[in-house]
Amino acid sequence: MNSPIKVIAFDVFGTTVDWHGSIMQEIQQMGLNIDADQFANAWRSGYEPAMAEVRKGAKTWTKIDVLHRMILDKILDDFKITHLSEEQKVHLNLIWHRLHPWADTVEGLLLLKRRFKIVTLSNGNLGLLANMAKFGGLPWDLILSAEVFRHYKPDPETYLGVADIFDVQPHEVMLVATHTNDLKAAKSYGLKTAYVHRALEFGANQIKPIPDVSDFDLSAADFIDLAKKLV
Amino acid sequence: MNSPIKVIAFDVFGTTVDWHGSIMQEIQQMGLNIDADQFANAWRSGYEPAMAEVRKGAKTWTKIDVLHRMILDKILDDFKITHLSEEQKVHLNLIWHRLHPWADTVEGLLLLKRRFKIVTLSNGNLGLLANMAKFGGLPWDLILSAEVFRHYKPDPETYLGVADIFDVQPHEVMLVATHTNDLKAAKSYGLKTAYVHRALEFGANQIKPIPDVSDFDLSAADFIDLAKKLV
Repeated sequence: MNSPIKVIAFDVFGTTVDWHGSIMQEIQQMGLNIDADQFANAWRSGYEPAMAEVRKGAKTWTKIDVLHRMILDKILDDFKITHLSEEQKVHLNLIWHRLHPWADTVEGLLLLKRRFKIVTLSNGNLGLLANMAKFGGLPWDLILSAEVFRHYKPDPETYLGVADIFDVQPHEVMLVATHTNDLKAAKSYGLKTAYVHRALEFGANQIKPIPDVSDFDLSAADFIDLAKKLV
Repeated sequence: MNSPIKVIAFDVFGTTVDWHGSIMQEIQQMGLNIDADQFANAWRSGYEPAMAEVRKGAKTWTKIDVLHRMILDKILDDFKITHLSEEQKVHLNLIWHRLHPWADTVEGLLLLKRRFKIVTLSNGNLGLLANMAKFGGLPWDLILSAEVFRHYKPDPETYLGVADIFDVQPHEVMLVATHTNDLKAAKSYGLKTAYVHRALEFGANQIKPIPDVSDFDLSAADFIDLAKKLV
């Protein structure tokens, strides 16, 4: 690629960290007598509708931590888990701060960091992303969040905000994500795009097929592969 | 100190990095026939009045990069430097992204990072702080800036914003700074405070005297000394 990329922005949930596997593992360790795979996916599937409320203005700016808690309260009810204390619920909700990176994540980021500025572009709030980085050893040059822009992806303020922060043009920023809707939005605002395949994002019972990636500048198997293609 | 400090927020210009020495060195290397010590101090002294314009609402939100450039244009005129190209001025202005840490800074931060979340709380913009961290190897857990809060220190939104980001109480955050006005403001909003003495902040011709630090929770000679007192 003969492109003057200066900044690489990474989607986080699913792309950089394994939310499904991390939640499943912790739910199993808690000894809750439920299907941990379904619980993880139910929690995550409440996320888009909750953000949509904020995006369309039906709800004022609300952190993901708070949205995650609202969804958690609903699914605890759905899964008939009634014995958790408030303290246990608070701790469980912060599982999103303790998500494990994929096996290739840290090595790939360190390779990319040598040549590029590597940043997050996540709908997760700043505190969540900072705690997650400390927990997983994610070597970000800068943590950027919807919370900085007061807009959730895929609003344009988020993608264009990264370019503005670093005083570069949109085409000098590349978004890396495993979600094609995120990449398509970024592309429509002039960013470069790289798809990374995370087949196990939703767990082994729902293997993700490889989507049509012909619209994007790059497609990679993981972050190390991405680094080989970019560095 | 038997205090439940969870987050340590660091002032940056002067406290974490040596703006005066870094600017002096680069001005001397450029071979400009001016007093580099006076030039550095003139540039820095334009900073408070420029931010005050934003703080009192006379100017809409303006990044420090832009304020630095406005001040630079004025002092280049004052120092009768007329031969620099626009490209050279842009590069010179970005000197604030290339400030060197004090000799103890990185080691002290790494010690403190083991026990606490370490973050910036600077009036510098996010891009500046991210570039500076990459340049100097500053191991922040999170880079926070006035730009996130759209308020410059000493506005309360900045100090209280750090606590809000991490969902902790103000007294669980400690501000570290070499400027007593910054610390006094932080204290008035309920934060813990640590003074670090940077005798050479304004250069060897203006050694800073040790101020009255009796109002603050801690006083330290440098970041390594601070770590000894806190870890």
